[in-house]
Amino acid sequence: MKTDIDQLMLNQNTAALWISGAAQHNPAMVYFTGGAHLTGADLFYLPGQTPWLCHGPMERDEAAKSGFRLISYANYPLNLFLESFNRDPLEAAAQRYARILQDIGLTRGKVILYGMREFGEFYSVIARLQQILPELSFEGDLSDAILMEARATKSQEELDHIRRMGEITVSVVQKTKDLLTSSPHDGDTLMDAQGNALTIGKVKSQINLWLAELGAENPEDTIFAIGRDAGVPHSSGTPADPIRLGQTIVFDIFPCEAGGGYFYDFTRTWCLGYALDEVHQAYEQVRQVYDTVVAELQAGANPSIYQARACELFESMGHDTIRKNSRIEQGYVHSLGHGVGLNVHEKPWSGKPDDPTNILKPGSVFTIEPGLYYPEKGYGIRLEDTWYLDSQGNFSKFVDFPMDLVLPVRG
Amino acid sequence: MKTDIDQLMLNQNTAALWISGAAQHNPAMVYFTGGAHLTGADLFYLPGQTPWLCHGPMERDEAAKSGFRLISYANYPLNLFLESFNRDPLEAAAQRYARILQDIGLTRGKVILYGMREFGEFYSVIARLQQILPELSFEGDLSDAILMEARATKSQEELDHIRRMGEITVSVVQKTKDLLTSSPHDGDTLMDAQGNALTIGKVKSQINLWLAELGAENPEDTIFAIGRDAGVPHSSGTPADPIRLGQTIVFDIFPCEAGGGYFYDFTRTWCLGYALDEVHQAYEQVRQVYDTVVAELQAGANPSIYQARACELFESMGHDTIRKNSRIEQGYVHSLGHGVGLNVHEKPWSGKPDDPTNILKPGSVFTIEPGLYYPEKGYGIRLEDTWYLDSQGNFSKFVDFPMDLVLPVRG
Repeated sequence: MKTDIDQLMLNQNTAALWISGAAQHNPAMVYFTGGAHLTGADLFYLPGQTPWLCHGPMERDEAAKSGFRLISYANYPLNLFLESFNRDPLEAAAQRYARILQDIGLTRGKVILYGMREFGEFYSVIARLQQILPELSFEGDLSDAILMEARATKSQEELDHIRRMGEITVSVVQKTKDLLTSSPHDGDTLMDAQGNALTIGKVKSQINLWLAELGAENPEDTIFAIGRDAGVPHSSGTPADPIRLGQTIVFDIFPCEAGGGYFYDFTRTWCLGYALDEVHQAYEQVRQVYDTVVAELQAGANPSIYQARACELFESMGHDTIRKNSRIEQGYVHSLGHGVGLNVHEKPWSGKPDDPTNILKPGSVFTIEPGLYYPEKGYGIRLEDTWYLDSQGNFSKFVDFPMDLVLPVRG
Repeated sequence: MKTDIDQLMLNQNTAALWISGAAQHNPAMVYFTGGAHLTGADLFYLPGQTPWLCHGPMERDEAAKSGFRLISYANYPLNLFLESFNRDPLEAAAQRYARILQDIGLTRGKVILYGMREFGEFYSVIARLQQILPELSFEGDLSDAILMEARATKSQEELDHIRRMGEITVSVVQKTKDLLTSSPHDGDTLMDAQGNALTIGKVKSQINLWLAELGAENPEDTIFAIGRDAGVPHSSGTPADPIRLGQTIVFDIFPCEAGGGYFYDFTRTWCLGYALDEVHQAYEQVRQVYDTVVAELQAGANPSIYQARACELFESMGHDTIRKNSRIEQGYVHSLGHGVGLNVHEKPWSGKPDDPTNILKPGSVFTIEPGLYYPEKGYGIRLEDTWYLDSQGNFSKFVDFPMDLVLPVRG
């Protein structure tokens, strides 16, 4: 949680966190500013102090909502630095930051860099700044030891945000289910109200609309993939494809609060009207792995043990798994889950067995999402819910939704 | 245009462009991949060659849509690099990229970095990579001499995308105007259909919905600001504020194609029912500056001359301007415009008088947006359209929309 940051910084001997970029769709910045409308900003977090927030002069009102100490870039006119440094844009930008760091008293120690932003120019600027200020050391946090570790346990307020996104998610999933089950079909093809084939693209447009109505968005798209596409885990679906009876539809929806806030992550697999025996059987196997892992969840565990468990179970059922061969494209080909928060994928991870901080703790929010993929046989299956561990040590889903494979169709 | 890239790279003595990050909401990547669904990728552009696209194994179908030469990260298993390099995540990540660069034959010369992505970890990785591969030089393009220069002139296909966004934009603006003019009012407060005050927040929700219906989104929010907020150019508006008659509403809408494609940028200022004399007068002045500048547009000009012209005009009308004092918060406080494309703000710029490449050329797309701001008097005014210069040397708006200050209200 946010209250852990100072101790985590101390553990890592860190002088400051520097978060750069816009305040929307920038998880590290949103964590501090709550999604104010800042198109470009730099936030400096020094332990035990109110953070500094550098902002454009036109965005001073938005910046003020943060309650942080404000620094307007207008106090450091780029033109003056360009004049002082031979109109060299790199030198001017680096010297300008050097002045800001000096003015907030950040003169020595480790500065950990965060933020979603354009990379290239800023890389040159920080590399030059590193030369200008050798007493400071600018680094990324490759072991996710500070901010991602703090963010890996959610406060009650954060859990409430995620639950609300869960409610929005299943509401949209229900609407989608209603659309599919109420649509007529012509032979094996589902039809829309105008008598044309109902396509993946039309369903996805409708999903986008429902999300917007409910104050959510899907910045990383939605997976609504049918048949062979469903057998490729991250294929988002082919818009022109018609929806046909009897084929698996993998519907993986991971929306966030509008503007780039908390995510939810959820998957169901459906067949309209009927499913082939092999699909029924594989579906029951995925569901069995899901149920088994959920029953075995324990506080303090590294989620990688559940990935190993899922592989063990799928292998005993006769499937290839990614632990036997990292390059397989059939069988169980991905990891069992991941943390969820301001990033749709974050700590804790299914694939970090050696990291002692990568464990399920009160406040952990994470997905369980086993699946089986046989693209050459034209099907894929995944089931996913987002779970959390509460302060009493109980594991719960945020929201419930039925796990039926076959959806009935009209007449 | 894209066809200029090789020559621009030659001019800058550049061996390769390296674009990193997701393929959505990442302008440099979208420019090449057209918005495929890739959550993390690296694209290497070498002159005269089909680009290389590195992708996650589960995203191979999406990657294949690009038509580029594909490299799956699964061919470079991170675990093997971790084993080889003492489980040091930084060393493993850097050595993995070193291997990829070697395998595509990128062994010496200048590599220009682009891409919207998490900054911190990648900074450390590239800084380490720079040490491992001293024959390569990793840099940002601080003078926007290659990719932003190519992107600064749009192909016919790109102009079509922007025009379509313009049509969507004015359609949503018309719907908003209809909502405001058809709403009843109770005294000076506009009311919604339920008999409650119509707030900024409600109008903005409705705008989001209309955009989603039309296949657009507003990743950087929409400015719908009234009264004093309208007097602060980048205040996005206070959601709980009711909409009152007689106050200026600055409605600045800059949506893009869903998923992060081409933008449009457009502003109107409205007063419901009536406007104060001072506001009428200032509005006419802004409009006069707009019309004057538009009439004076010339191919080959650096847009900074129009910023100077706008300042001159506003000063002659008795207003303070940003060229006299970069820190003013009243009067004409910003620049006259900017290029528009896959970024809402891009080349050409109003504030780069010394850059000989910063000029209006066939294919240039840019905004004209003069404004006057008096937050302490409770008003602000801005008028903005997106313009382009066609291959025949003619300047045009993409779409038209009336410039009326006062909107009628119901009975």
